[in-house]
Amino acid sequence: MSSFQELKKKIQNDNFSIGILGLGYVGLPLAVLFAQKGNTVLGFEKSDSKTEKVNRAENYIGDVEDEHLDAVIRTKKLSATSDFSRIQECEVLIICVPTPLDRFKKPDMSYIQGACEEIGRYMKPGALISLESTTYPTTTEDFMLPILEKESGLKHGHDFYLCYSPERVDPGNHSFKTENTPKVLGGLGEEASELGMLVYQKAIKQIHKVSSPRIAEMVKILENTYRLVNISLINELTLLAGKMDINMWEVIEAAKTKPFGFQAFYPGPGIGGHCIPLDPFYLEYIAKKYHFDLTMIHTAGHIDMMMPHRMVIKVNTILNRHKKSINGSKIMILGVAYKPDISDERESPALKIMDELVHKGAEVFYHDPHIPEIHTEEGQSFSSTPLTKDNIKNMDLVVIVTNHSVFNVQDIVEKANLVVDMRNAVKFESEKVYKF
Amino acid sequence: MSSFQELKKKIQNDNFSIGILGLGYVGLPLAVLFAQKGNTVLGFEKSDSKTEKVNRAENYIGDVEDEHLDAVIRTKKLSATSDFSRIQECEVLIICVPTPLDRFKKPDMSYIQGACEEIGRYMKPGALISLESTTYPTTTEDFMLPILEKESGLKHGHDFYLCYSPERVDPGNHSFKTENTPKVLGGLGEEASELGMLVYQKAIKQIHKVSSPRIAEMVKILENTYRLVNISLINELTLLAGKMDINMWEVIEAAKTKPFGFQAFYPGPGIGGHCIPLDPFYLEYIAKKYHFDLTMIHTAGHIDMMMPHRMVIKVNTILNRHKKSINGSKIMILGVAYKPDISDERESPALKIMDELVHKGAEVFYHDPHIPEIHTEEGQSFSSTPLTKDNIKNMDLVVIVTNHSVFNVQDIVEKANLVVDMRNAVKFESEKVYKF
Repeated sequence: MSSFQELKKKIQNDNFSIGILGLGYVGLPLAVLFAQKGNTVLGFEKSDSKTEKVNRAENYIGDVEDEHLDAVIRTKKLSATSDFSRIQECEVLIICVPTPLDRFKKPDMSYIQGACEEIGRYMKPGALISLESTTYPTTTEDFMLPILEKESGLKHGHDFYLCYSPERVDPGNHSFKTENTPKVLGGLGEEASELGMLVYQKAIKQIHKVSSPRIAEMVKILENTYRLVNISLINELTLLAGKMDINMWEVIEAAKTKPFGFQAFYPGPGIGGHCIPLDPFYLEYIAKKYHFDLTMIHTAGHIDMMMPHRMVIKVNTILNRHKKSINGSKIMILGVAYKPDISDERESPALKIMDELVHKGAEVFYHDPHIPEIHTEEGQSFSSTPLTKDNIKNMDLVVIVTNHSVFNVQDIVEKANLVVDMRNAVKFESEKVYKF
Repeated sequence: MSSFQELKKKIQNDNFSIGILGLGYVGLPLAVLFAQKGNTVLGFEKSDSKTEKVNRAENYIGDVEDEHLDAVIRTKKLSATSDFSRIQECEVLIICVPTPLDRFKKPDMSYIQGACEEIGRYMKPGALISLESTTYPTTTEDFMLPILEKESGLKHGHDFYLCYSPERVDPGNHSFKTENTPKVLGGLGEEASELGMLVYQKAIKQIHKVSSPRIAEMVKILENTYRLVNISLINELTLLAGKMDINMWEVIEAAKTKPFGFQAFYPGPGIGGHCIPLDPFYLEYIAKKYHFDLTMIHTAGHIDMMMPHRMVIKVNTILNRHKKSINGSKIMILGVAYKPDISDERESPALKIMDELVHKGAEVFYHDPHIPEIHTEEGQSFSSTPLTKDNIKNMDLVVIVTNHSVFNVQDIVEKANLVVDMRNAVKFESEKVYKF
């Protein structure tokens, strides 16, 4: 029997193990889901502290339900390890490692490379490998495949199979989780696609097959490029609207009444997180290889990059109206997560705003109920300040950067001396409040 | 009784006439709709040929149903005139004139100016004026108001009332017509808003009131800027995808399976019509007054402007593969309307593609079942060529620019020697067909 037929039979008979490399906000929910569905899952993580947490059923990912993790650890359907030689126990290997950009917006492929090297070293013949990390089109074929073949001495399409299936995790989304978010999958060849479909169908309700990994790679980037471009557009229009005495929030609410051809995006102090600020620049990176300049992404990136600075200028303008300077003012940042109701501050514009305010001489505090301490890009460390009456009153200015739903905005505005609201959090009229 | 109270009572008692200035694709459907609802409507048009057509119930607008026009002419609820002194017969005046850009993308405000001058000259005290034409924010207040007050010697808020309520006509849209498309309205002051709401509620199901004309002006521009930016984004990504051997149509179909945060736009040879190519540049124009550079619109406009030329390069590439040049080739353009199933070729990329092909020495033909003849920007005139077997066979290349639903694509491809498909019209595999 060919290795394809053999693996297909194993998957169909539920006689296979899944190894998931990377137990972060993508890998852990996926591992728990596969385990819940009765599959045997082995989670791989370099960090011992994470594997120990998982094995103790200590949840550290917001989108994972504690009892779900607890159940699959108890039934031994899921376990975690930092011993990558145990890759040889797995028929299916799913890579969910980070793909960050460095500070010069160049893709850092070292995590994918490391995962491929480990897999190449240890996988047994007849394995299926799926990459979920967001990356530039052609990665699966041109970057992963050569590493896997070289390290393993095995041959794709004969000894192992490779596909790409981008994660679509939206942290904090209560309607769409891993299980009910349709998944896109493109295999390198028909056999890889077929195996990939069989595996993911064990856990995920709807899989949309495309004809190649590069199609699937482009899908994910298109989705997030769409978001970057539209957020940047609305931010730029809002900056103009401010000068024209036009409340952009009211404009957007009215535009939303158009029943076709419009989707609302909202202004804010800048994008954050692990997707929108990164994915489009993966495409911009690979485009250069094709002598191609992606002007829309470039322009959107430019707007996004300047947003935190524009917000500091806004703060300065408002303080100035009250005959104060940033230098010497006490400023409280409310919310540092990159979006409401999550505990993730990666790439959050709040951090950049805080750095610049410190640099300009402000005494900066923050409060975030979900994030007890942060470290900014410039190496500043902060702890969340309690939101007491005295602490609010004591500030020259409170800046609402992230509108967590637990904030009692009415109460905060009443106690504050001055508020800059970057998220349209304040829904009532107040002379103390200035909006972006 | 104040003129506000007086007009309000007249409107409430259905004791008023509506004058509609401009009987084009916005004005005529609106005039017919108001008349259908029992209001007395007088349509104003400079062109005698148009007023005569209307008065003979000869329909010339695709979105107007012949029997509706016929009924309101028969019952004398609607009549048309080129005598603008009859403005004095109307309590309500709605301006639906064009707002084109000149060839240097500068707004041509002469139609609005002309309408305001006529209204100012003839309106009786106690009138309500509403502008529906798309224009830059501040037009109603800063451009119209001074003309109206100067010409009439009357005072806004006392003798007359002014509001802005953008048309949202989507030609060819069978689900959303004037009546059931929610309308945005912003009056200059609360009284103007109230009167405007009362009038439009006679004919339109849902009116969304905003706090000022400039908000309403911005709403319309946001809606179409959103479309320009997203079409340009997908076109730019598609140009790159072509180089990377990625079928962007397949990518978009897959991205559409994401159940949140994505709206699909499709590649094409460029934007056309009376809205998307114009509206964003109205905003770009006024932004300069505020020392503000709208980089997203600028970049999107740049991509859009080069699309017809990129399409000619595509044609050249395909002909070259078959050892042919544009110079001397017979090329048939299929569809010249700016979108499918309408008879409007304004700003259509087809015209620009034809001009460039002629310039490069091609013998250019076109076929469009909805448009019997066209005149391009460069002054070329063409008549639609019948789509006979011989005419298709006789062409070196057929280019599908606009995918009218009456086209039998299968049949055309079978007869053609070579096809460039700019709209993903061809849904089957064929070696003769090249896609954008």
